[in-house]
Amino acid sequence: VPRHDAALLALDAALPSGAVRTDEASRHAYARDESEAAPVLPDAVVMARSTAQVAAVMEVASAHRVPVTPRAAGTGRTGGATCRAGGLVLAFEAFDRIREVDAEDHVAVVEPGVVLGDLRRAVDAARLFYPPDPSSWAECTVGGNVAENAGGPVAFKYGVTGHYVLGLEVVTASGEVLELGRRTKKGVTGYDLTSLVVGSEGTLGLITRATLHLLPAPEAVRTLLVFLDDEARIADAVGATLRTGIVARCIELLDRHTLAVLRDDGLPIPAEAAAMLLVEVDGSEVAVAIDQERVGNALTDAGALEVRLARSEAERERFWSVRRGMSRALRSRAGNKLSEDVVVPRSKLGALFEACRAISAETGVRMPAYGHAGDGNLHVNFLWDDEEEKPRVDRAIEALFRRTLDLGGTLSGEHGIGVLKAPFIGLEQSPGVIDLSQRIKAQWDPQGILNPGKIFAGPGGRPGHGWC
Amino acid sequence: VPRHDAALLALDAALPSGAVRTDEASRHAYARDESEAAPVLPDAVVMARSTAQVAAVMEVASAHRVPVTPRAAGTGRTGGATCRAGGLVLAFEAFDRIREVDAEDHVAVVEPGVVLGDLRRAVDAARLFYPPDPSSWAECTVGGNVAENAGGPVAFKYGVTGHYVLGLEVVTASGEVLELGRRTKKGVTGYDLTSLVVGSEGTLGLITRATLHLLPAPEAVRTLLVFLDDEARIADAVGATLRTGIVARCIELLDRHTLAVLRDDGLPIPAEAAAMLLVEVDGSEVAVAIDQERVGNALTDAGALEVRLARSEAERERFWSVRRGMSRALRSRAGNKLSEDVVVPRSKLGALFEACRAISAETGVRMPAYGHAGDGNLHVNFLWDDEEEKPRVDRAIEALFRRTLDLGGTLSGEHGIGVLKAPFIGLEQSPGVIDLSQRIKAQWDPQGILNPGKIFAGPGGRPGHGWC
Repeated sequence: VPRHDAALLALDAALPSGAVRTDEASRHAYARDESEAAPVLPDAVVMARSTAQVAAVMEVASAHRVPVTPRAAGTGRTGGATCRAGGLVLAFEAFDRIREVDAEDHVAVVEPGVVLGDLRRAVDAARLFYPPDPSSWAECTVGGNVAENAGGPVAFKYGVTGHYVLGLEVVTASGEVLELGRRTKKGVTGYDLTSLVVGSEGTLGLITRATLHLLPAPEAVRTLLVFLDDEARIADAVGATLRTGIVARCIELLDRHTLAVLRDDGLPIPAEAAAMLLVEVDGSEVAVAIDQERVGNALTDAGALEVRLARSEAERERFWSVRRGMSRALRSRAGNKLSEDVVVPRSKLGALFEACRAISAETGVRMPAYGHAGDGNLHVNFLWDDEEEKPRVDRAIEALFRRTLDLGGTLSGEHGIGVLKAPFIGLEQSPGVIDLSQRIKAQWDPQGILNPGKIFAGPGGRPGHGWC
Repeated sequence: VPRHDAALLALDAALPSGAVRTDEASRHAYARDESEAAPVLPDAVVMARSTAQVAAVMEVASAHRVPVTPRAAGTGRTGGATCRAGGLVLAFEAFDRIREVDAEDHVAVVEPGVVLGDLRRAVDAARLFYPPDPSSWAECTVGGNVAENAGGPVAFKYGVTGHYVLGLEVVTASGEVLELGRRTKKGVTGYDLTSLVVGSEGTLGLITRATLHLLPAPEAVRTLLVFLDDEARIADAVGATLRTGIVARCIELLDRHTLAVLRDDGLPIPAEAAAMLLVEVDGSEVAVAIDQERVGNALTDAGALEVRLARSEAERERFWSVRRGMSRALRSRAGNKLSEDVVVPRSKLGALFEACRAISAETGVRMPAYGHAGDGNLHVNFLWDDEEEKPRVDRAIEALFRRTLDLGGTLSGEHGIGVLKAPFIGLEQSPGVIDLSQRIKAQWDPQGILNPGKIFAGPGGRPGHGWC
């Protein structure tokens, strides 16, 4: 029996009927993710619904040296859920129960395929708050959020996913089940392997359960819509907000091009506006009323064209909904799109905008940007129509990365490295750090079967130990 | 030339005159730390003042396989700064410059020997806030705080040291200098090796620079002194505080025995009080006035004997000063003291108190407790006078650990494992997790020369690769 068939037979024997799918339609359905990474057909798609099933899959995969690409909603932006060397896509979307929302201890325990929006609703119902809010929250899953260390707008005040992960159950490459971390809010027993798995993009272990810390729900949120007449004012406006001493819930930004998307969507944007900030404050009713006024005044003093309060929850939700849909809206405006999520120290936002303008002018590539201004985290998009423009796009991207690093920044604030940024990691990390990281990876996954070709590989992903 | 002498000669050649000390007085001065761990004489004490010097020390140490025990202020509570197998104590106390406090980007960059109190003053002067506040802040250093992932009262609202570490410069066992992490607030490039080093107790690498995230300083703080007539009310009172939905700055607790220390110190404590909470709220002036009232009312409704506001900053500071000195005050009340820092889910605090009472009654060991009630983090102290009582103390400690773990807790909330808790780590972590941790350790330190005998070793510390 060829290795391929032997592995499939073993998987079929270990899993419920229908869990292992080798039909063309299934394979094609799992060949790509939300990113622009080139699709690669897996040899089979395996649906897991329990820790025992995930462990069984990994026992077979390690025995047969089959690469395994974990995947939940596939909403990632760097190709992390696409397989590079065939093998299995291990789908977590049906492993999706909320096991617990403990309103006393402020803890939630969830399976990896739980959709973030579902968790948010369950937590809201307990009058608690799970802050991470990537734009894809209606579709993305908690397992994917943990694997990528997802952020979102309110990360400015509340931090990213990793800040809320107390403990993880993880299945290793060999199928061993490990309990990492804890259920308590504090804990320093042994090495922080939980944080090591957070953001490791499915390359160290497979997350089969997450224990999450919850906060009390803030009583009130106020949303300021802040319009600027020039993108050059963005950095000043962000600085003015920060200097109030009030930690806003978020400080989101839209540049001239992305503001146009809001206009096209019929949102009321002043004609002279060339940039916008969405600033929210939260807390008790009394506190937000005062904070909103102080932040609003500071922004007016900093030269904002107009500062106004969202008139209703419905208006607030309309702005956010268009903001959340920005990535897809931009994609629909060009034949091709690549999106980056670089971060610079906040004081360097102005310099980053200047760099984007210069790179766009030099390469002729359209580069609309939006993002999390408070964190210095900018989503710079690269739009082009014809394939022949691609070399210019590649040049523009590399120029952006180099300038970002010159400014003391980092290549990725929340999307991870995946396949698409893997060629560039050496610009940011030294050979010593990369070598140590890979030696640590080998302790978790000595055969290199867990999500091969991600983070550290060369262009397109180094071939894994595929069975093909 | 014997190995010992060859290493000392090489160190002397590599470092400034006076940096390598082998006199009896120096060796004795660095034989113990603030904990009850048995003192062990190092063969030499080396003072480092720069990254280059630390790297030079590790080059010599790895070439000669000499164990190195890093140490800054020596205020740790689990023996992490005591050497177990001779070799070098590498002292960081003079490597102590604050390199930068950047009020624009809210970042501080410090050397490892900076005293936390000095950093706090520098940050205050910039109207910013570095939250971690272990009781030893007037003496302990940032390097030690990072190595132990120190907490403190305000960790309840603001999180522990690790939440504020953006990046680290680290020297490995072989003397290689690695830059981990970043300067930006967000960043997910590669594995989170920064978080792996945080709390690793000097066993993975030596911290030579820390880049820290700062917050705006809260405008106001209000302190509530809450007296209870029975320790059994503590859990209810904490629950009542949490159910207000207000995230207090801290919720500290003192039991009957530790409250007596405050009384002896002349603080005004009602005669009927048998326990106390120190609850603080912070934020804008307006918000804290309201929050203080809401929390105070909730505590009164929960049956508090008395809830009153600290009358002045001086009164507030008097309470805190006695609270911060509690560990040493208790030590002065008995021949011997061991202090633990177990954590349970908050809802289990009542059960933990019951367990302490039962264990104390059964073993006859005095067990005064205080700690961070909001985090479920209790400092349980074991006091005894005669050496012959020690077996009963050991039994009491093991009983506390087992009960803590039964309640879903963890062995250490902020002190680390060090030497003193190393015999117990197997109660909390599985052989699989410990094995993986040790294999990761071996990637950083293949010869096992960095702080040997800590975290994972058996009683008293497994002998390292000493030169003796």
